[in-house]
Amino acid sequence: MCDHTQQLPREQTRQVQVGAVVIGGGAPIPVQSMCNTKTTDVAATLAQIRDLAKNGCDIVRVTVPTQAAADSFVQICAASPLPVVADIHFDWRLAISAIKSGAAAVRINPGNIGSFDHVDAIIDAAGEVGVPIRIGVNAGSLDKAIAEQDKLSIADKLVHSAISFTDHLERRGFYDFVLSAKVHGVPETIETNRRLSQELPHVPLHIGVTEAGTRRQGTVKNSIALGVLLAEGIGDTIRVSLTDDPAEEVRVGWEILSAIGLRRLHPELVSCPTCGRTQVDLIGIARQVEQRLQQVRTPISVAVMGCVVNGPGEARGADIGVACGKGQGMIFVKGKTVRKVKEDEIIDALFEEIDRRWPSS
Amino acid sequence: MCDHTQQLPREQTRQVQVGAVVIGGGAPIPVQSMCNTKTTDVAATLAQIRDLAKNGCDIVRVTVPTQAAADSFVQICAASPLPVVADIHFDWRLAISAIKSGAAAVRINPGNIGSFDHVDAIIDAAGEVGVPIRIGVNAGSLDKAIAEQDKLSIADKLVHSAISFTDHLERRGFYDFVLSAKVHGVPETIETNRRLSQELPHVPLHIGVTEAGTRRQGTVKNSIALGVLLAEGIGDTIRVSLTDDPAEEVRVGWEILSAIGLRRLHPELVSCPTCGRTQVDLIGIARQVEQRLQQVRTPISVAVMGCVVNGPGEARGADIGVACGKGQGMIFVKGKTVRKVKEDEIIDALFEEIDRRWPSS
Repeated sequence: MCDHTQQLPREQTRQVQVGAVVIGGGAPIPVQSMCNTKTTDVAATLAQIRDLAKNGCDIVRVTVPTQAAADSFVQICAASPLPVVADIHFDWRLAISAIKSGAAAVRINPGNIGSFDHVDAIIDAAGEVGVPIRIGVNAGSLDKAIAEQDKLSIADKLVHSAISFTDHLERRGFYDFVLSAKVHGVPETIETNRRLSQELPHVPLHIGVTEAGTRRQGTVKNSIALGVLLAEGIGDTIRVSLTDDPAEEVRVGWEILSAIGLRRLHPELVSCPTCGRTQVDLIGIARQVEQRLQQVRTPISVAVMGCVVNGPGEARGADIGVACGKGQGMIFVKGKTVRKVKEDEIIDALFEEIDRRWPSS
Repeated sequence: MCDHTQQLPREQTRQVQVGAVVIGGGAPIPVQSMCNTKTTDVAATLAQIRDLAKNGCDIVRVTVPTQAAADSFVQICAASPLPVVADIHFDWRLAISAIKSGAAAVRINPGNIGSFDHVDAIIDAAGEVGVPIRIGVNAGSLDKAIAEQDKLSIADKLVHSAISFTDHLERRGFYDFVLSAKVHGVPETIETNRRLSQELPHVPLHIGVTEAGTRRQGTVKNSIALGVLLAEGIGDTIRVSLTDDPAEEVRVGWEILSAIGLRRLHPELVSCPTCGRTQVDLIGIARQVEQRLQQVRTPISVAVMGCVVNGPGEARGADIGVACGKGQGMIFVKGKTVRKVKEDEIIDALFEEIDRRWPSS
């Protein structure tokens, strides 16, 4: 999909380090999410961070809306297995507090952080200890003077706001930042990030569709927007926003990276839609296989096919696969039939072969 | 996303009519699915077709693998509220039978339908009664002579197979067909359809990712591939393949068309990912709103926001919205606050306002 003879936009961005995780300059694309626990509930927040880590999250964000939250934030950073980004709105002093508390980065929003004097205080504090900043522009909370310019499109407003802010940071000699500009619309998200990538070719971009909705709609919107952008080489780190469990954001993020072949955490599952030919409980089998594959971290491809039309063909193309017939399954490994088993033995037999042949998993 | 000053590829394709539904030539993009009931179980198949219709399905496919299925197929076509496409593999006589039984179209697969003599018999029978054909090429069931050419990429094989087949139909004077070429990989799906659109600019394309997997992975893969293609103007009808309930395929299909602004069935829901600032059960509220919006068929935008950061901004940008604070919600209509209600009254109040202001829904 990408022309690899010329450099991709994301290979030209500066590298920024968030904890031990590198963003930009062609580094593997980190998957981010955000806690939805109360930050003052340290135990619940750490439990959620551990769950996110287990699902493959690389960087986590935690809101710091009050001084009480800032106090808890110290303990969260100290015990977190992932680098923690402090999410700051309105109050620049909380950003300074978070920087001193062990934040791996701070996210500030040009639309609501106030005057450039306050921004400069944050920049200086961050620069002193080497903590990067994420500039998070959002269509729902633009600076009022920009938001009210009715002649500008949403993309115009986001790009304009982002550039005036990044310019300010760079003029002060601060380059250790990542930029995001988010909106809930897919075409607007694509246009905004294409323009940012052109106008600011050296700035690493955090991409995502914000307020994308519940699981189905949010998954679709993020997949399209991030799929289009990543395939064009745009985007250095991703966050899928869903009105759902944050772990689901991470799982969808990995599916997006896997689908375009950029980064893979688990085996690829190839499974057919069922039809009137299917003679086994294929939906049930595929779901169970998918769940057990979550424990396997070898990037093999696994086919679960319901009939003789495409079944043997796809199962042969995969590293391992099963083509199901009436009450039974044929297990293929690299194109050769290795076992014929009864329906209720398919899943165990499949994983026996996976464990035996790819033992590192 | 598309440059509307020049003609899109899909505006240049021939129109093909499947029942009362038009595919191609820039017509609204129909959403398709396929039954996974036994075709011989007429009652179950018709119940599923009615459920698919309720979810917005435009065209449904039903497998016809045996003569017994062909016998049931007559009754299904007679009672179906949607045009029914017969899915035929291996046996050309079943295609002829389906054409005579009231099929709105027949889908045949060049990889397994046998000699061109048999194909010609199908073409002639279809031409005689004006039934269109869908040519369905699939990477898992290519003609053996093509499948075994190791030097060709998957996209090469699919395009080559598709063109040799469409050429044959056109040489026989038959133009009433739609073409699909499917594979389970996203980059291969995109490349194949881009090439088909260039090589066969007048042939309407049915696009989709096949064997895309279970709900999450399948939704992601179809969203990316169809999103990229549709945004480039490629694709005249879609089917999302999922190893899941076919109605979910239709719901995801509509989400894809809505997200890129091509076609919309329900209101747009804008809802934020929750975070540590959220003081209401926003996931629960958003899910309930989403469900009730399924009954509304006016293309308004509805925002459900969890806090004061982006909440009022997004809620103001929507036709109607609620910004939630501690135990309460502010309802906005076209940017103006109209009501302030308690948390447990938010959903009812929102739908009271929707019903009152957009009564056609």
